This record gives sequence, C-alpha cells and structure tokens, in this order.
Amino acid sequence: MRWIRYEANGQPVYGIVEGDTVTEVRGDPFAGYEKTATRRPLSSVKLLVPVIPKTFYAAGLNYPEHVTEAAKKLGREPELPPYADIGYRANNALIAHGENIVIPKDAGELVQYEAELVAVIGKQAKYLSENDALSVVLGWTIGNDMSERTWQRSDRTLWRAKNSDTFKPMGPWIETDFDLDKAETTVKVNGDIADHFRTNNMVHGVAKFLSRMSQYLTLYPGDVVWMGTDGWPRNLKHGDTVEIEITGIGTLSNPVVREGR
Amino acid sequence: MRWIRYEANGQPVYGIVEGDTVTEVRGDPFAGYEKTATRRPLSSVKLLVPVIPKTFYAAGLNYPEHVTEAAKKLGREPELPPYADIGYRANNALIAHGENIVIPKDAGELVQYEAELVAVIGKQAKYLSENDALSVVLGWTIGNDMSERTWQRSDRTLWRAKNSDTFKPMGPWIETDFDLDKAETTVKVNGDIADHFRTNNMVHGVAKFLSRMSQYLTLYPGDVVWMGTDGWPRNLKHGDTVEIEITGIGTLSNPVVREGR
Repeated sequence: MRWIRYEANGQPVYGIVEGDTVTEVRGDPFAGYEKTATRRPLSSVKLLVPVIPKTFYAAGLNYPEHVTEAAKKLGREPELPPYADIGYRANNALIAHGENIVIPKDAGELVQYEAELVAVIGKQAKYLSENDALSVVLGWTIGNDMSERTWQRSDRTLWRAKNSDTFKPMGPWIETDFDLDKAETTVKVNGDIADHFRTNNMVHGVAKFLSRMSQYLTLYPGDVVWMGTDGWPRNLKHGDTVEIEITGIGTLSNPVVREGR
Repeated sequence: MRWIRYEANGQPVYGIVEGDTVTEVRGDPFAGYEKTATRRPLSSVKLLVPVIPKTFYAAGLNYPEHVTEAAKKLGREPELPPYADIGYRANNALIAHGENIVIPKDAGELVQYEAELVAVIGKQAKYLSENDALSVVLGWTIGNDMSERTWQRSDRTLWRAKNSDTFKPMGPWIETDFDLDKAETTVKVNGDIADHFRTNNMVHGVAKFLSRMSQYLTLYPGDVVWMGTDGWPRNLKHGDTVEIEITGIGTLSNPVVREGR
C-alpha cells in the first residue's frame, strides 16, 4: 500500500495511491483511518512531507564505502562504526518531493546529496528483539541527507551542515510493501546516473538499529529513521535537479537553487 | 503570565496560572487562545511537558566553568566554543515536572543532572538580528539535561547518554515575565544545595544563539532552545530527588529511580 500526505482545502490529509488515483482517508495510517468517497488524480495533488516525526533519527555513517571515503577526506584511517549508535536530524529542514533545495548564500561549493532509505515507525514500541524489530515499521520512504562539507568539518555540531532549511527532502510517499533485500538505490543528477548501490549493504541493518535504540528509547508512530548512504556524492549547484530512486518505493526529486540567485 | 499544559478529560489543554488557580483556555499560547469559564486549583491538575517542540535545540557547552570541568574530565585543555553552534536533543526523552527520571538498568554510576534555562519560541522567524532576537521568545522554562557520562564518552553520538527515555525533564510551566539578567539557578539534591550560578553567565547569550541559528533555519512556535549549564554536577542515584530553581520562573522537581529496582 502506498500512502501520500497532501494538501486538501488548505489542510494536510492522507490518501492511498492506486495507479494514478488518490483516495482520501479520514484519520491517518498511524492512529487509524477510513476511506472517503473523495478521489483525485495523483497528478493534481500537492505532495507534502509524508510525516512530521516526533523524533527524527539518522544512522549517519552506515555503509562501508562511505565510511572509507569520509575517512580519506579527513586524512584518517577508515573505521567502521562498531555499534548501531543512532544520531539525529531536525524537522525544520524537511521538504517534500518536488520542492526546492535552497543552498544558503554563504555556503561553499561542497554541497552534496546523500541518498538514504527511511524506515517509518508505525507502532509505539520499547525493548524490541532484532527478530521483532521490523514488525513496528509501517513502511518505507526516501531521504536526501543534504550536507555542506565545509561546515560539517568546521562546526561543533551538524546544525547548519545538515539541518539548514530545505536540507532534508523526504518522500515522495510511504510504501508498505517493500523487499529490502532486493532494493537498489540510484542517484541521478540532471538525468545522469551519479551513484548506484545495493540499498541493504549496511554496516548495521535496520532491525539491529531499531532493536538497540528501543532498549533505551520508546519508538513512536511517525518517527523516522534515516539509514545512511553509500559511496561519496558529487557537488550540487544552482540549477541542478537531484533524483533518488529506490526500487520498490519510487523516486524523490528536488531542484537545487542557491539563495539570492 | 504563567502558562501550564495539563490534562483535562484525557486531553492536553493550556491554562493560565494566577496564584493557586488555573484558568483553562481554548487554543494555545502559540496560535491564539481565549479564556474559558473553567477554573481549577493548581494543586489538582496533572502537569504535562509545557510544549512538545517541532525541533528540540540545545546549546551544550555554554558556561565557562562547565567547559573547564568537562575538559579536565577528558584530559584536554579547556577551549570555550568560538561560535554559537546549536545542538539537538530528542522529544522521546521529555518528561514533566514531578515525573520519574528512570536510569536505564545498565547505566553506570555517573548519571548527572544539568540545570538549564529554556527559551520557548513564540513566533515563526528567520534572519533575526541580535537586537530583534528576544522578541520571538514567548517565555521561559527550566530543563534538566540528564546525562550518563560513560556513554557520553564511549558512544559515537549522544543518543542514550542524553536522550534515553525520561532524561529530559522540562517545566513546570512557561513564564513570560522574566528578568534574565537578575536570574540565578540553584540545584538541590534531596533538599541540599548542590549547585548555584548566575543564569545569564553564558559564553554565548540567548540573543546571539537565536540570531545565528535563524540565518540558516526557521524558528517555529513551540521550538525550545536549552541554554546549557554551569559548574560540574553530582551523581544521582535511585531514591534521590533533584530540584532546579531559576528565580523568576519556578522549580522543576523530579524523583530519580533506577530501572528494575
């Protein structure tokens, strides 16, 4: 099942996508819903971020090639993270499929995408075993963990390097039927393939993260967990379009502009 | 004016405290409100966290003595943070005044309070000057940035060191009339004074943080910014009670229990 969040009469609502049609629901996929008689062409609705999380989790370094490349840039020996220690991103930075990524006017040239699988939590949970962990996932979406590398090195935290407004595109929707082991992630910049990797080639898998997190914290419906990226991405500039496809989910596409241009 | 959030008929509502009486409102202090005829004794209501933020900001190291002590523990030279780089905490960890701080069963003995002033944002804002920055603050509350120091050193992020469930007591209420320059912060453990410092003795003040943050990110009504702590705190253990008083706001008090005891 494919869930979208969109604007109807100025309010955010959820709908179910079947083919090119959206069926509006009362309620939401987390607390419960019923279908209404309202149907619209998918092409006619303005997509919103599929969920505003209570807590916005992100794995950070979680793919072998990305860890190796990141270490090279910093002149260090690569070291795979020994434990599934989760990190955080910020809700102010979320934008939907199709919306502009705005590079702050004083950012440098090293402004880069990171293509990420996103697990959307559907149930409140604590103390999950690895075997049970995936049962709390409602579905999956795509995230673009936009990063300004100069600030990432210079600042004491990741606040503007990764959480400047518009730096966290997420969407286009939540797909509940998804085969993680078969999935592949492809990034295109202006239509050209820029990166390609097996989505589940993670250092620590989704179940391992959710299980470990839940020993200390309660997962809530609507929480999102971004799973990290592989490879080392290219720079993006004013006028580019970045697309991230994960097979079985869809494509998250966003134009890039520089503030003040 | 003093705003509380509390439970009425199973729903969270806002009320205005005058003396020992709470007047319930329709709406909230952020989007607008009107007073109702419902009045209750303050002592009869169950206080909730005064606001669930869209984004939960925290300054981290922001007082000279705390920076010096933290450096000593790590065997490093103390270095005051050169810029107002904001950090983050997580909503899962928030609890209200009076609720139990629960130390995870496998936590070490170095589990400590950090007494913090909290600015509560009242207006959406970007590109604030330092002169204008405080005009977007609706009011002030108190935060206890509970920290497990072993995990803080060992983990790649602050996830369980600072964001385990119940590790972020915030409250008891939002006070809109507050003289920051006159305020003093006092911590008591089991009734004994454990720490005392001038609340505004910050490396980077509130206006400086808000102005710098807002060059890159939009502040939203309900966002909270925790301003850091001074000194170096004591360990807390099962059976303790920790109270943080900031003059002009009030007292945030929470019992401490260890999970499984």
